[in-house]
Amino acid sequence: MSIHYVNPKGSMDQLSHLEVEQLTKKAKSELYTLYRNCSLAVLNSGAVTDDSRELLGKYPDFDVHLIARERGVSLELHNPPADAFVDNQIIRNIQYHLFAVLRDILFVNVLTQRMNPCNLQDSKFITNQVFSILRNAKALIVGEHPNLVVCWGGHSINQIEYQYCRAVGLELGLRELNIITGCGPGVMEAPMKGAAIGHANQRYKNSRFIGITEPSIIASEPPNPIVTELVIMPDIEKRLEAFVRMGHGIVIFPGGPGTFEEFLYILGIKLDPANKGQSIPLILTGPKESEAYFDTIHRFIGEVFGQEVQDLYEIIIDDPVTVARKMRKSISEIKHQRAENHDSYGFNWSLKIDQEFQQPFIPTHDNMANLDLHLEQPAMHLLANLRRVFSGIVAGNIKPDAMDKIEKLGPFKLHGDPVLMTKIDRVLRDFVEQHRMKLPGGDAYVPCYEIVK
Amino acid sequence: MSIHYVNPKGSMDQLSHLEVEQLTKKAKSELYTLYRNCSLAVLNSGAVTDDSRELLGKYPDFDVHLIARERGVSLELHNPPADAFVDNQIIRNIQYHLFAVLRDILFVNVLTQRMNPCNLQDSKFITNQVFSILRNAKALIVGEHPNLVVCWGGHSINQIEYQYCRAVGLELGLRELNIITGCGPGVMEAPMKGAAIGHANQRYKNSRFIGITEPSIIASEPPNPIVTELVIMPDIEKRLEAFVRMGHGIVIFPGGPGTFEEFLYILGIKLDPANKGQSIPLILTGPKESEAYFDTIHRFIGEVFGQEVQDLYEIIIDDPVTVARKMRKSISEIKHQRAENHDSYGFNWSLKIDQEFQQPFIPTHDNMANLDLHLEQPAMHLLANLRRVFSGIVAGNIKPDAMDKIEKLGPFKLHGDPVLMTKIDRVLRDFVEQHRMKLPGGDAYVPCYEIVK
Amino acid sequence: MSIHYVNPKGSMDQLSHLEVEQLTKKAKSELYTLYRNCSLAVLNSGAVTDDSRELLGKYPDFDVHLIARERGVSLELHNPPADAFVDNQIIRNIQYHLFAVLRDILFVNVLTQRMNPCNLQDSKFITNQVFSILRNAKALIVGEHPNLVVCWGGHSINQIEYQYCRAVGLELGLRELNIITGCGPGVMEAPMKGAAIGHANQRYKNSRFIGITEPSIIASEPPNPIVTELVIMPDIEKRLEAFVRMGHGIVIFPGGPGTFEEFLYILGIKLDPANKGQSIPLILTGPKESEAYFDTIHRFIGEVFGQEVQDLYEIIIDDPVTVARKMRKSISEIKHQRAENHDSYGFNWSLKIDQEFQQPFIPTHDNMANLDLHLEQPAMHLLANLRRVFSGIVAGNIKPDAMDKIEKLGPFKLHGDPVLMTKIDRVLRDFVEQHRMKLPGGDAYVPCYEIVK
Amino acid sequence: MSIHYVNPKGSMDQLSHLEVEQLTKKAKSELYTLYRNCSLAVLNSGAVTDDSRELLGKYPDFDVHLIARERGVSLELHNPPADAFVDNQIIRNIQYHLFAVLRDILFVNVLTQRMNPCNLQDSKFITNQVFSILRNAKALIVGEHPNLVVCWGGHSINQIEYQYCRAVGLELGLRELNIITGCGPGVMEAPMKGAAIGHANQRYKNSRFIGITEPSIIASEPPNPIVTELVIMPDIEKRLEAFVRMGHGIVIFPGGPGTFEEFLYILGIKLDPANKGQSIPLILTGPKESEAYFDTIHRFIGEVFGQEVQDLYEIIIDDPVTVARKMRKSISEIKHQRAENHDSYGFNWSLKIDQEFQQPFIPTHDNMANLDLHLEQPAMHLLANLRRVFSGIVAGNIKPDAMDKIEKLGPFKLHGDPVLMTKIDRVLRDFVEQHRMKLPGGDAYVPCYEIVK
Repeated sequence: MSIHYVNPKGSMDQLSHLEVEQLTKKAKSELYTLYRNCSLAVLNSGAVTDDSRELLGKYPDFDVHLIARERGVSLELHNPPADAFVDNQIIRNIQYHLFAVLRDILFVNVLTQRMNPCNLQDSKFITNQVFSILRNAKALIVGEHPNLVVCWGGHSINQIEYQYCRAVGLELGLRELNIITGCGPGVMEAPMKGAAIGHANQRYKNSRFIGITEPSIIASEPPNPIVTELVIMPDIEKRLEAFVRMGHGIVIFPGGPGTFEEFLYILGIKLDPANKGQSIPLILTGPKESEAYFDTIHRFIGEVFGQEVQDLYEIIIDDPVTVARKMRKSISEIKHQRAENHDSYGFNWSLKIDQEFQQPFIPTHDNMANLDLHLEQPAMHLLANLRRVFSGIVAGNIKPDAMDKIEKLGPFKLHGDPVLMTKIDRVLRDFVEQHRMKLPGGDAYVPCYEIVK
Repeated sequence: MSIHYVNPKGSMDQLSHLEVEQLTKKAKSELYTLYRNCSLAVLNSGAVTDDSRELLGKYPDFDVHLIARERGVSLELHNPPADAFVDNQIIRNIQYHLFAVLRDILFVNVLTQRMNPCNLQDSKFITNQVFSILRNAKALIVGEHPNLVVCWGGHSINQIEYQYCRAVGLELGLRELNIITGCGPGVMEAPMKGAAIGHANQRYKNSRFIGITEPSIIASEPPNPIVTELVIMPDIEKRLEAFVRMGHGIVIFPGGPGTFEEFLYILGIKLDPANKGQSIPLILTGPKESEAYFDTIHRFIGEVFGQEVQDLYEIIIDDPVTVARKMRKSISEIKHQRAENHDSYGFNWSLKIDQEFQQPFIPTHDNMANLDLHLEQPAMHLLANLRRVFSGIVAGNIKPDAMDKIEKLGPFKLHGDPVLMTKIDRVLRDFVEQHRMKLPGGDAYVPCYEIVK
Repeated sequence: MSIHYVNPKGSMDQLSHLEVEQLTKKAKSELYTLYRNCSLAVLNSGAVTDDSRELLGKYPDFDVHLIARERGVSLELHNPPADAFVDNQIIRNIQYHLFAVLRDILFVNVLTQRMNPCNLQDSKFITNQVFSILRNAKALIVGEHPNLVVCWGGHSINQIEYQYCRAVGLELGLRELNIITGCGPGVMEAPMKGAAIGHANQRYKNSRFIGITEPSIIASEPPNPIVTELVIMPDIEKRLEAFVRMGHGIVIFPGGPGTFEEFLYILGIKLDPANKGQSIPLILTGPKESEAYFDTIHRFIGEVFGQEVQDLYEIIIDDPVTVARKMRKSISEIKHQRAENHDSYGFNWSLKIDQEFQQPFIPTHDNMANLDLHLEQPAMHLLANLRRVFSGIVAGNIKPDAMDKIEKLGPFKLHGDPVLMTKIDRVLRDFVEQHRMKLPGGDAYVPCYEIVK
Repeated sequence: MSIHYVNPKGSMDQLSHLEVEQLTKKAKSELYTLYRNCSLAVLNSGAVTDDSRELLGKYPDFDVHLIARERGVSLELHNPPADAFVDNQIIRNIQYHLFAVLRDILFVNVLTQRMNPCNLQDSKFITNQVFSILRNAKALIVGEHPNLVVCWGGHSINQIEYQYCRAVGLELGLRELNIITGCGPGVMEAPMKGAAIGHANQRYKNSRFIGITEPSIIASEPPNPIVTELVIMPDIEKRLEAFVRMGHGIVIFPGGPGTFEEFLYILGIKLDPANKGQSIPLILTGPKESEAYFDTIHRFIGEVFGQEVQDLYEIIIDDPVTVARKMRKSISEIKHQRAENHDSYGFNWSLKIDQEFQQPFIPTHDNMANLDLHLEQPAMHLLANLRRVFSGIVAGNIKPDAMDKIEKLGPFKLHGDPVLMTKIDRVLRDFVEQHRMKLPGGDAYVPCYEIVK
């Protein structure tokens, strides 16, 4: 058995004895399992996979114990993956991430214990929770000017797309913008790599490469080695809220159903009449070779929601400099606007996020089957429901829980307006064709859903 | 009306909207009043007084409002004391302290709301609370080596004593030790001033001048201008616990009944058999001119508790270098000891503090009258009760609540073993004679207590 | 005409008025031309070329003026290359490099003015000059532990070699080693890029990517964008001396005649009996695909000098981890050794460098023709002369002066022992075949030399 | 024999072997003696004396050797004063100062060796030398805003004056101004101590307490312990030039003939027509109790030079806040003015200093006797000559060389216009009466001069 001791690094404060008790293995609690699995995912930093069950299965003997040390708490790792070490020393970035996991798992747990259950559904309290987790993670830096570009897109992209994303990252970095993504490989890594070189060229010292993940996804998309700040939100909806409240602009690169979920989410929020005064630059971009992807989603939005919703974003093909310039300009304007309104630079309190987009959607077979997928509902509601559809498909593709259920009960069944269902079907078929449903190199994609027309 | 806006400084994180709501003036709550009064005390930083009612009474129109700002929350001060400003700019140290008040008042309030009431009495939970407040104040610095010397003593000392305390501070500072005191003037200021010069001579960059206070005392002992970290504990007992868990050695300078309370407290803890292995260097020191003071208290301890308790401390007269050398040496040993036991450098978890010393003592006339002051009880219990006696006398001397009660109901009555009562009486008479009961220059001291023999 | 103003950055101190005068354009001096051309090269940072005449020819209207500013001296650039700017702002790294040029050109000029001409040839004074230039450039950091790996190799390498060099850089970076190279593209860039990612993974904050160049080469190998410290030595021999006195280990990647010159140089120094006690780890490494290159040079050394000289280095094919581990280990040993001998970590004073290797070799047709290339001379002398041969060939390939002369007078003629000449010829032919004499994509290589057997 | 090893600290770069050779004791050179004596003076940091011969005489066995170390050069001190150490560790500030001495002695020596002797008299070259020494000492900080207040005044002042100077320093410090003085005790220390507290209150992190001294004075006025940057100029005139080119405003406190010398110097420069556009705020200030001092010098200026010269300064009695406010305001204006003219913030190049004020005056009996002290010369010339008179008197009072000569040859003889001589006499008698000629406590003052009417 190999044992390694790891000392604390990063923004985790010292722990009290009461807190440490919660995570001792003896407890054999669900909390401990969650903590252990997230730690294991982080120790696989840089691994490219989309099968979290496989990843977790490779290290059945892995364990992590908290032990008291003169200068705080330390970790005792049993049988960790060898790639996390260089000449028997843990890679420092992974060391930081291990303590980010500890920090967030503990803090969310404490928050939840303390919260009045009646408040769990309340929009105000959910936002407060998102804020509290980010604050506890020291991710809200007082005095920092707006500079965070959210980069969304697939973790399974081809080499041409990867290079393009890196080129966009380089141009963003040269303009001293920072990157916030979902923390995994692919689009979540390439813009960070590019921006790192851009920052180096500018000797920019305040680089932030923030990865925001959540427990159900971390093992299938382990943090890439460029992430400097890792935050683990408790669920996908809070993760999305964290992106849009922290970020100052959004770039969407090619991706699969997860990216489409994010796209529907931000459209739903931008469409909210309460957010009319909000400026949230939204650019879709990719290399010439990926135009088909943008055709697919742009056509879908046009056919289902019309020009008004199409006007909420801009598509720029094959032009990293223009993407970066527009982002830089919009974010400078956002700074002035927030300064004038005395709004926070670091957390967009004034953005309205409807409960529909905040409340966790659990993709059970029932919940999926019961989604209201008719066209005679306000666009914002339809966007919320479509968001859930694709959230469920992501779960069915890569999240252990949902995959287990599908193995048992067969694919999710989706019901709704036949016209709409045909269009959804077309989007999904396009994604399959464009190899956006799974990492390349694996077997052919077996759908986790069935459209019941 | 004069209005000033003050931006945040220091270790306060950004506030959520929910948190700000708790302190809006509209609430006109008790919490707001507490917050307002502590803020006002801090704005009087450097004032020398011992009448908090007078201080607070001088600024009836003072108000403080929280307002949202792009980079966090700001304060709007109405009619603040002019001395807090230089050429219309708030002095930066006071600015930090204002936000320390906000941070601690809010945090303690949140803690208390969240706590299970059954736990309020539990030793483990009280310690956890002390830890949580200090951690939230960023007062527990990961990786810092033991270097904190607690300096206890009066805020009302004469010029010779002040110079001596400064000389001891210089020697501590030259040895790169930091200072933690009660944050006011007198002994709470002089060693910090000396240490600041010592640090400057050594180009020591990690100076820490920590002041730990509590709401009932802050207005009569406003923070001195040297304090760099201000922490407001919720009550006197948690303040004392913070001192002994954070500090690595204790120096007691001449002082009045408050200092004597602190002395009895630390003796009680050192006497606890559970703390046999603990190393807490305790040195009493002063200039030759103050020897009478040490005679008074040394004799009292000898007569009531005997040699065993006298052996818990050392008295050094007129020798700053020896005091500093012994502290430096003991603290180096503590470092080795804690490293070996894997104990925290920053917070002494393993020190046992009995509930008797943790539970808040409210000095009402009844509580004072009911104190068990007989000799036939274990020394540790008697120390705990004597600690309460002097705590009550301090309250009667300088705390608004107690002063109001005494004006109405007459002096506190103290009952007990006649022999013991005589000795207590002698100590108090000595203190009056040595001008240790009140700031010099005022009227003659009118006792707030009556010994019923 | 485009004009840009650039403020000072980096380790250049403020200039005195006397110093500024030396570089005013009015002077139209040779010094100004040198300064202007080096500045132009730096503004082409990242360009891949090997024709400095072409590069300089592209910007005939470029000019640089020094102007006094409240906070020091500023530069006024006339018609600079557009690629040095992002959205009309100069890229900060280039800004630093511009002032590094100013600093070094001025300082070397001052040094030379002040030096007693009789000392110019004296080994001790040459070493002192190398030291002074590096010190003035703040390149000698007091207190830094040995961590500098010299990376030598070609600026014209293929994609497989580039990836391999980057992989070695990553492994060096993960072991917190820094890189010092010739500052251009190819092997001078790839290990730095790899190390930058390695450092990021380790959150290593003291990254140093040092590029050491000299005026005759800077325009054909402009600094790559990763270089963080640029130093311009006055000639090739002082540049080589800077490498071996600053560096703590040497890795040689595939390259052309310039790399071979460096290899012969370090062999000559390691062979010096005075350096027996010196530890200078020397590893030759490349991907499997480049084995032919190492065969060529290893064979030549074996045939001409025998096993003894072959034992001075180690060849490792296709194994970045082993290269990095050996460097890390050797450098740790060097640290202990220097600490024991009280030798400087930052500048290896005790290394003997014979005058033969220090005195500038000017590759005129006469000097080349007169080189003593017979086998009956001590190995060290022969190495010195062979070093000059390849130095001359590099000049003939890429340095404007030598290229001009060759256009006029035909190729350099090399005379010597026929057996030796045949072996030299074979090395050069191999280099041509392996495309190591010129950047790929250009015309066929036209030799700048002729072997007269 | 006690031996201590001291490692380098501060702004001294590493030394080359050639440089170290210059200061080896073997050389037994004048340079070594100078270096040794300045080092000894620095080791007496904080000593209050005005007899440098006594100070140097107390440590006849003191020696300092340079030795090579892995991380640069170290010092080996033989029999240093015990007060420079705390528990056998050298006080860090003294450690920095020791290396400042080494740095400046070496640099000035190198400068002088390299200088063309014809340039030694040239105003432009003298200014260049002052600049070079300050730059080498890292005393000219690029990017720093104007904030340096020159404080001139006596090292022998009474307690009331000391407190007043500290109060002015506090107010300057609260306004984030830095202090530059002559580095010794008295007025050279008190404003620094006050400013240190002011800076602490404002958490101002860029405190600079600069002491500028010269070899002939350092032993009689060893650096006080607050000085953070020590610079040793080669002679009194370059020291004065450093003050006026680096400083942004001047405050003159009570002092003796040295202070009067400085006062005459700055008046001469302000009076230069070339400096009409220059803004050099000049305030004379002291407590009420010291008014006589200002009467003496104000009357002398009025009687000899009239209102025009009196208008060059302002006298403010007993009002630290007003002094500091005026300085703050003037210095803010200077910033704008220099920014507009593109003048350097850190070194006032455009100030004209006439050769008369630059060339070293050696106070021999002949030179003193030959001073032109008639009234029929332009005010600026008379100021220059009067400056020399008082410079000579300072030398006669406290500088070993001059004191030796006077012991041999009797007091300096001063000739000139009888009216002027009477006024000079009156000033000097007033100084004697006000105890400004010597430290109090010593014997009665024996004049080192004789006025020949």
